[in-house]
Amino acid sequence: MIVVMKTSSSQDEIGGVVRRIEESGLKAHISQGVEHTIIGVLGQPVSELQDLLQLLPGVEEVIPISKPYKLASREFHPLNTLVKVNDLTIGSDEIVVMAGPCAVESEEQLLATAREVKASGANILRGGAFKPSTSPYHFRGLGHEGLKILAKAREETGMPVITEVMTPTDVELVASYADILQIGARNMQNFILLDEVGKLRKPVMLKRGLSSTIQEWLLAAEYILAQGNEQLILCERGIRTFESSTRNTMDISAIPTIKKLSHLPIIADPSHATGKWYLVPPLALAAIAAGADGLMIEVHPNPDLALKDGAQSLTFDNFRRLMSQLAPIAQITGRKLAISGVKVKS
Amino acid sequence: MIVVMKTSSSQDEIGGVVRRIEESGLKAHISQGVEHTIIGVLGQPVSELQDLLQLLPGVEEVIPISKPYKLASREFHPLNTLVKVNDLTIGSDEIVVMAGPCAVESEEQLLATAREVKASGANILRGGAFKPSTSPYHFRGLGHEGLKILAKAREETGMPVITEVMTPTDVELVASYADILQIGARNMQNFILLDEVGKLRKPVMLKRGLSSTIQEWLLAAEYILAQGNEQLILCERGIRTFESSTRNTMDISAIPTIKKLSHLPIIADPSHATGKWYLVPPLALAAIAAGADGLMIEVHPNPDLALKDGAQSLTFDNFRRLMSQLAPIAQITGRKLAISGVKVKS
Amino acid sequence: MIVVMKTSSSQDEIGGVVRRIEESGLKAHISQGVEHTIIGVLGQPVSELQDLLQLLPGVEEVIPISKPYKLASREFHPLNTLVKVNDLTIGSDEIVVMAGPCAVESEEQLLATAREVKASGANILRGGAFKPSTSPYHFRGLGHEGLKILAKAREETGMPVITEVMTPTDVELVASYADILQIGARNMQNFILLDEVGKLRKPVMLKRGLSSTIQEWLLAAEYILAQGNEQLILCERGIRTFESSTRNTMDISAIPTIKKLSHLPIIADPSHATGKWYLVPPLALAAIAAGADGLMIEVHPNPDLALKDGAQSLTFDNFRRLMSQLAPIAQITGRKLAISGVKVKS
Amino acid sequence: MIVVMKTSSSQDEIGGVVRRIEESGLKAHISQGVEHTIIGVLGQPVSELQDLLQLLPGVEEVIPISKPYKLASREFHPLNTLVKVNDLTIGSDEIVVMAGPCAVESEEQLLATAREVKASGANILRGGAFKPSTSPYHFRGLGHEGLKILAKAREETGMPVITEVMTPTDVELVASYADILQIGARNMQNFILLDEVGKLRKPVMLKRGLSSTIQEWLLAAEYILAQGNEQLILCERGIRTFESSTRNTMDISAIPTIKKLSHLPIIADPSHATGKWYLVPPLALAAIAAGADGLMIEVHPNPDLALKDGAQSLTFDNFRRLMSQLAPIAQITGRKLAISGVKVKS
Repeated sequence: MIVVMKTSSSQDEIGGVVRRIEESGLKAHISQGVEHTIIGVLGQPVSELQDLLQLLPGVEEVIPISKPYKLASREFHPLNTLVKVNDLTIGSDEIVVMAGPCAVESEEQLLATAREVKASGANILRGGAFKPSTSPYHFRGLGHEGLKILAKAREETGMPVITEVMTPTDVELVASYADILQIGARNMQNFILLDEVGKLRKPVMLKRGLSSTIQEWLLAAEYILAQGNEQLILCERGIRTFESSTRNTMDISAIPTIKKLSHLPIIADPSHATGKWYLVPPLALAAIAAGADGLMIEVHPNPDLALKDGAQSLTFDNFRRLMSQLAPIAQITGRKLAISGVKVKS
Repeated sequence: MIVVMKTSSSQDEIGGVVRRIEESGLKAHISQGVEHTIIGVLGQPVSELQDLLQLLPGVEEVIPISKPYKLASREFHPLNTLVKVNDLTIGSDEIVVMAGPCAVESEEQLLATAREVKASGANILRGGAFKPSTSPYHFRGLGHEGLKILAKAREETGMPVITEVMTPTDVELVASYADILQIGARNMQNFILLDEVGKLRKPVMLKRGLSSTIQEWLLAAEYILAQGNEQLILCERGIRTFESSTRNTMDISAIPTIKKLSHLPIIADPSHATGKWYLVPPLALAAIAAGADGLMIEVHPNPDLALKDGAQSLTFDNFRRLMSQLAPIAQITGRKLAISGVKVKS
Repeated sequence: MIVVMKTSSSQDEIGGVVRRIEESGLKAHISQGVEHTIIGVLGQPVSELQDLLQLLPGVEEVIPISKPYKLASREFHPLNTLVKVNDLTIGSDEIVVMAGPCAVESEEQLLATAREVKASGANILRGGAFKPSTSPYHFRGLGHEGLKILAKAREETGMPVITEVMTPTDVELVASYADILQIGARNMQNFILLDEVGKLRKPVMLKRGLSSTIQEWLLAAEYILAQGNEQLILCERGIRTFESSTRNTMDISAIPTIKKLSHLPIIADPSHATGKWYLVPPLALAAIAAGADGLMIEVHPNPDLALKDGAQSLTFDNFRRLMSQLAPIAQITGRKLAISGVKVKS
Repeated sequence: MIVVMKTSSSQDEIGGVVRRIEESGLKAHISQGVEHTIIGVLGQPVSELQDLLQLLPGVEEVIPISKPYKLASREFHPLNTLVKVNDLTIGSDEIVVMAGPCAVESEEQLLATAREVKASGANILRGGAFKPSTSPYHFRGLGHEGLKILAKAREETGMPVITEVMTPTDVELVASYADILQIGARNMQNFILLDEVGKLRKPVMLKRGLSSTIQEWLLAAEYILAQGNEQLILCERGIRTFESSTRNTMDISAIPTIKKLSHLPIIADPSHATGKWYLVPPLALAAIAAGADGLMIEVHPNPDLALKDGAQSLTFDNFRRLMSQLAPIAQITGRKLAISGVKVKS
């Protein structure tokens, strides 16, 4: 941490800052510039110290230097984290594809979709049993019943299953069905939920909040890592901007940025990012070209009858076409498509 | 709901849209324009219908007409909602002031602050016992112990107390101590928490999410109202924008906009909106001038020793000065400062 | 400027940074922290140095300390700038009100409006002769003819006139008619236009760009000041955010922030900020309460026949009502309404 | 255009709206819904009509239906526009690459860069002679001298040249040197400049404004097309959002969106969008994967000595590496890299 004093600051004011730093058990190092006196803080300051020093008389600015997250940083953990799900390794040179309907609507709908996406090369089945909904009058998911249908689809197809958990008291239930638990964008800063999935020893996928900076996202990841759960995957799904022609603006640059700052794998969800099915394939290809470790894609047997987010779901045909374009893109970035993920029944 | 067909749409495509509308139990009304055929949907469409119609061939655009919220709208409930807290009436011609520290740190800190803000004219005591924190390593509040301290301060000063609840399982506990439960910005779309406080028959204050539109905010309010809790207050606390000189950008225009669209009272929180103590008084005055029903202000006996958000807290002196400026502003907007809120002990 | 080296940086890398600093004719001051080595740059660095140092091996971050603007800063010029227009002094304890139609449409329209707003207490007449328009097919103003009509209205009413200049080659023409030249939001970074009005010795009002930070705005002001024109006024008119219920989001906190960072007067334009006439009065009051030096308000004799921005224009009645509310608000902030601005004809 | 009346609107109010529509020479078509009366406007309304109708008593909302741009729309011009520059065809199945330094600094710097990027496969040479700069104290380009250096580089290498024009009076000068004139992001709504380059019969590249919606961008394009210049190229270069880890947020979804809405070719500029050289290659690949017609890349012989934007410039080596990855990506999207652009000297 660095304290920049005002041009006009007095010796007394400088002394006051030094005293406050030393009261916190840290050392101060004064450096006299031409215009500004600068005071370096040596040692690990508690984060509140920044705000406190800011208030002292004579202080122009307090600048933090260390990143506020540690376990999530690549400095702390230089090698890529690999998240194992059956025989898949997310974060390796394999690109994984999670696909399925936005919401589990019925056994028929989910099974039909699961079979198709598996046949097209998807590795993991997605489907929401608990659905966050902007309006209280919209479909909010089948709940426990939906989890059972997901389990049935896994049993039949062998595909591991990812599904969202919305509240701490559901974590145990959802974990007993899901292979990966998803934390949705609206819950990225539901800190008690983060603590709770952090206590699991099971893969978790943390979606970026609608208006979360990359730093806040990594701090949310830090919550889960700090509880000891290292099986963590990030997911970029678009941020809120002024542009209204797409539901959100997909921040593709977040993908290489996360790769640089962190060791965690990152998945891209172009379905929620764009909200329009015809934008999903180009953005999916773009995300892989930019280095994403995988995709999450909404697929529905009959998008125009979907109970949720039909407008952003691919038909089976469109999904198959997209899958056929992925392999060569993956190759350019030095990777390949993951082949299964499917657990062979014995 | 109105469906605008493409210039090039065929009779078959128009027929397809009409059929889909009628299958939903609604009526279609065709209106042939020069360029576009327009199909009006008569009856109350389920909200998913918009997405579904959007996907049909020949459709250019589907435009919703009715507002998606009902109970929160002024059309449905033309008179102002009045929320009673002891002898205060929030939403009436009385301006209420909630003041206190960001976090409850100790009995001494809270009591000292409570006495001072009461003496300066504040009506309600604020203080966080459960604190959301961006980093897992920061102070997260005293929890249950903090609630007890709040109760003690209420007992001594007679001031009603507002404090945040962060997760559904804490609702009962917090409600047993607080006079008003606060839902924080990060939890505005924690729908299960909204359901839970909706089941209470106690005042709730719902802060606007960092990147929530006014419509999403009113839909979150609708969750609480739909569960039967009508003792609901809104709170504008700044939105996320590109401007970085303030912590957030306070959306003052949200105040008269909410007054027009809804019957719910609205409080302004300039402390969180700006993040800088010297911006709090001008923004507080601005909010009242724009028609807010009250203020929520952070006050701390010693801001530069605060465990949380010291930089945005007013000292006792600055708070007293602000209070003295409020009365004439209130008068201009046809209102007056609420006088107590304090429950006289019998 | 401060250079923070990576935890892992070598002595060679530190030496490289020091060398680069010294090559720029500056001094380096090394300070060895526990985790990071920090190198202070002594002297006035050219601004590109930051980017260059950033690229050197071993560098974690380069942090500028001095503000990039100088002439616009309050440090450089501690007292408020006062802009004289006839007998008005903008930036003093007088609140000035600029009012009139968005666009000059005809002599009748402008004269009728000028008389009315003067009678209600406005000090300066606004009206666009050259109008920026998002679409090439919309009304773009009467041009030179509009300037002549403005001059006629000034002659009749004695009110000074503010009008927009859109391109460098029009500066001379507009300056020969206008008392204050306005630079619109879309031209805030039209640097050649800024240079050009900087060469005048006549008041200029610089609107904030739609997505400009306060720092960029002050740097645009610096362009004008650097050319020697100190008769400069700023104008907050709303920024672009995700919220779509208002045309823009008025950043009221920019008003006290500008007052702290700069000595330049600041006017608020709630008409363009909100885009809705019924939001203009509450936001106008809020701006004055927050410390603005004046207002710019659109008024039209018949808003529903206006060629431009009718929806945000006040009727004569609504304007008169607003004016009657301003005086007491001004008083609270220690100010009063300016009484005329009108040049008495001799 | 559709007018939605309030639930409570009277017959008189409906009559008032109909009258206003008919006064504009258009026809009104009333459609009585269960909750709302809806009035369709038949004929081509002037765009101001929307604002005017909005103000009439009883009106809930006025909804435009036709897109506000015409010449730029794919409906009006279904086939892709092809822009010819020497033997290149921008907008065809050829991917073009524009490369070079941000600013022309010297003949040596530009020639060295031109030779290298040509050898690596670039087709067009970029370099700024007139440079917009946020601060008046930064390098603003070599001006006319820079144009001459660009011409010299073209003569030597045969590469066509793209360079920015910042103000209407420079259009003739810049057009006498450049093969493509660039309109920068800050000038996207400099309407007089748009008019001026619209009068040329030479290729123009229009960058998206920092906070411009896609619709505003296409309206700016409409200005140029309306003057008769159809040799128009769009360029996505990042938008302003709350995320601060990149200079801007590159809106990759704008690429397929523009392809759907318009016939104009679109280039991606990942250098300005990200501001960080190590993010340029992944974003460049992403843009091509998403369907861009080409790239604009900053390359500098010695980025850490660059006078402008060194931090976002690729070295020769990094540029060569990027070029080698482009061809297979282009192939996946059914395209190939353009081979030259170079005019053979006779």
